[in-house]
Amino acid sequence: MTHDQKNILSVRDMDREEIDALLTAAAKFDQKKFTGHELEGKILAVLFFEPSTRTRMSFASAMMRLGGKILNLGSVEASSIAKGETLSDTIRVISGYADAIVLRHPKEGAARLASEVASVPVINGGDGAGQHPSQTLLDLFTIRKSMKLENIDIGLQGDLRYGRTVHSLAAALTKYDDIRLHTIAPEGLDLPSHLKQDLTDAGMEIIVHENIEETIPELDVLYVTRLQRERFPDPAAFASFAATYRVTPELLEMAKPSMIVLHPLPRVDEIDPAVDKMPCAKYFQQAHYGVPIRMAMLNEVMRS
Amino acid sequence: MTHDQKNILSVRDMDREEIDALLTAAAKFDQKKFTGHELEGKILAVLFFEPSTRTRMSFASAMMRLGGKILNLGSVEASSIAKGETLSDTIRVISGYADAIVLRHPKEGAARLASEVASVPVINGGDGAGQHPSQTLLDLFTIRKSMKLENIDIGLQGDLRYGRTVHSLAAALTKYDDIRLHTIAPEGLDLPSHLKQDLTDAGMEIIVHENIEETIPELDVLYVTRLQRERFPDPAAFASFAATYRVTPELLEMAKPSMIVLHPLPRVDEIDPAVDKMPCAKYFQQAHYGVPIRMAMLNEVMRS
Amino acid sequence: MTHDQKNILSVRDMDREEIDALLTAAAKFDQKKFTGHELEGKILAVLFFEPSTRTRMSFASAMMRLGGKILNLGSVEASSIAKGETLSDTIRVISGYADAIVLRHPKEGAARLASEVASVPVINGGDGAGQHPSQTLLDLFTIRKSMKLENIDIGLQGDLRYGRTVHSLAAALTKYDDIRLHTIAPEGLDLPSHLKQDLTDAGMEIIVHENIEETIPELDVLYVTRLQRERFPDPAAFASFAATYRVTPELLEMAKPSMIVLHPLPRVDEIDPAVDKMPCAKYFQQAHYGVPIRMAMLNEVMRS
Repeated sequence: MTHDQKNILSVRDMDREEIDALLTAAAKFDQKKFTGHELEGKILAVLFFEPSTRTRMSFASAMMRLGGKILNLGSVEASSIAKGETLSDTIRVISGYADAIVLRHPKEGAARLASEVASVPVINGGDGAGQHPSQTLLDLFTIRKSMKLENIDIGLQGDLRYGRTVHSLAAALTKYDDIRLHTIAPEGLDLPSHLKQDLTDAGMEIIVHENIEETIPELDVLYVTRLQRERFPDPAAFASFAATYRVTPELLEMAKPSMIVLHPLPRVDEIDPAVDKMPCAKYFQQAHYGVPIRMAMLNEVMRS
Repeated sequence: MTHDQKNILSVRDMDREEIDALLTAAAKFDQKKFTGHELEGKILAVLFFEPSTRTRMSFASAMMRLGGKILNLGSVEASSIAKGETLSDTIRVISGYADAIVLRHPKEGAARLASEVASVPVINGGDGAGQHPSQTLLDLFTIRKSMKLENIDIGLQGDLRYGRTVHSLAAALTKYDDIRLHTIAPEGLDLPSHLKQDLTDAGMEIIVHENIEETIPELDVLYVTRLQRERFPDPAAFASFAATYRVTPELLEMAKPSMIVLHPLPRVDEIDPAVDKMPCAKYFQQAHYGVPIRMAMLNEVMRS
Repeated sequence: MTHDQKNILSVRDMDREEIDALLTAAAKFDQKKFTGHELEGKILAVLFFEPSTRTRMSFASAMMRLGGKILNLGSVEASSIAKGETLSDTIRVISGYADAIVLRHPKEGAARLASEVASVPVINGGDGAGQHPSQTLLDLFTIRKSMKLENIDIGLQGDLRYGRTVHSLAAALTKYDDIRLHTIAPEGLDLPSHLKQDLTDAGMEIIVHENIEETIPELDVLYVTRLQRERFPDPAAFASFAATYRVTPELLEMAKPSMIVLHPLPRVDEIDPAVDKMPCAKYFQQAHYGVPIRMAMLNEVMRS
């Protein structure tokens, strides 16, 4: 790591001013305020050690929108890693081929390790149970497009135990004032208690709900996540919960007109497709905001 | 689908003037009449849900020749689709990452479905037993390079039952005057009767032949397709037909000097490599014409 | 192959002046003496029929640094080759999509075959037990960065029997004066005798060593290669050799201060990571030199 190398590894590392600066830069890019030459001549190495269509494609799109080029690692099975090379060695070598690296890796801490051996900036594209800062930033960006990031009620629904996305978002929201977190999860899939403790310690109010109906009228944001079949003891338990937790137009009649529905996608059955055309449905827009957010991140670490 | 979104889904949707306009645009690009900046700053998402080296690489080459950039879906196994996402959701998300989408999909109708949910133009790169407009256009382009598209005899040889390429070409040829279609196929692999009916209804004359020798002297174009081993009841039947249907220099001595041989490639044993150097062998040139044709298509849907 | 098509297939084909010209061009690129527009508008087809992360990524990076674009074959399993297409046909078709081809192939002679049917320049990115000219050129380049390429002692350590890299480097070194080759290999993994004969016939002195300690004090370059477990009769034999042949800081205390350590990478256990920070450790720098070397090669074959 060179002295002035800028990395983006975790939203936890960032203070509110840094986050707001990135969101503001993203807003500029979202309004097409870019020339397409900001990163001309620059190369981004895209190292995805596990698949993530959306994250990979939106980082690539963001880089290209700024005039930069993409260098793909390609399939991991076909790479030097399969020959026994360490992540450190791979990162050292690829540092010589590119101007920045975005790394997606199944192991928590991989991005930080990479940043310590890289000679170019490293962006964490998600590391296992760890951080996924570009997802958190685009979630915040989407909320901020609809309302001020203060004094709001946010519902988190679905698998809150294993969902990295909601953990990271909840932690980031502690940097803002008067955010109340409403959790709606199947038994056994609630927020981990250590995270609940951290959030409470940071001054956040957490309200646990048995079902979505009791809380939906007070929510400003409903953040839905994918229920993964394999987390349930048996198929019947999954089917029962999937039906109970499904977001439908009928359910949404109980919500405030200004409430927005988010989802990190891919969505399976958690949201009825009939919701897609309702004004509250912001999840596809949310995915699209991945491009301006990642433009802001790439420009932040690579601009001269 | 936005109001003025231009898609290219099927040659069936196009009238003869639209087809001729694309062929004329392709001829211009083939003569290197482009600046390399026509689509500068534009991004083409290349979504191939089944492999097709030639189609994918020539679309990418065409986009790059016009100054544009390529955003690859990558392997389908590694994508959100594997997590249960619908094609509609994938297309909606990727609409936010690119300026146009080229879709290859095993299911007939996939491209039309995609065009209905996409917010950017969609080009059909082949959808199952359905359409493959860029292949048909490059076939027409190759014929038109050698002769006028009227009053000609075209032989279709090989697997005419399952060969999407020849179905689509035959249908497109009904838009031109006085095309006579000569079919030469193993038993059971002739043109489907519903297609024959459609062609005849459109005024096309179809002549069925038992063997290639009886028709070759009258042909202006011989279009050969790959015989797929798995279509035959047993290996011996395949071997027997493969030998009978092989195009060799000896066979071609019976043809008019001006006759041209086409093949959508890849070729296996249908054409003797000794034919490659004969002036009638246009199949590699035909593959190369894929680039100017696709430049014309991309420019048509994305130019401002 | 057109009359004036320039290929780079093997260092054996090149005389010393040609090699030195490429090394000098690479030195210029390494000092950032390029505009990023040298190959603007050009397309390089990257056809890797076997994986090679480093070679593929550094060719792509080199092409992009000169303003060019990359057209990937993608996975071989998913390509026309899987449908039975010959390499010749694949190359003929792709010649129409790109301005040059870099080919990696498991079969010796594949690159030469490709150059005979291609209508654009072909660069050999490694063909089986055959040649790998870009690796050899970057090895020479790395040595030349530290010392003159004459009157030096070079140690080759590891699997010298199957290691294409060291065979190719040794052959190239015969073009330079007073190079002494010291070989240090496990029993059964020494240089093949036909190669030894060729080198000796070309006037090179070869000294065989039992162990690294006896020769290290006289070496100017120590070139280490990966020991592949599968080359050994049993795991114990491998473990024993791996321990004996490991390069450690203690071992390097016996070397001249000016000696440099090279390795084609990926490295597994042959070099202790504690060596990485020593001034003699040039292997990561060596990998990075892959970019300027490949810039020189690409510019050589594609510049107008």
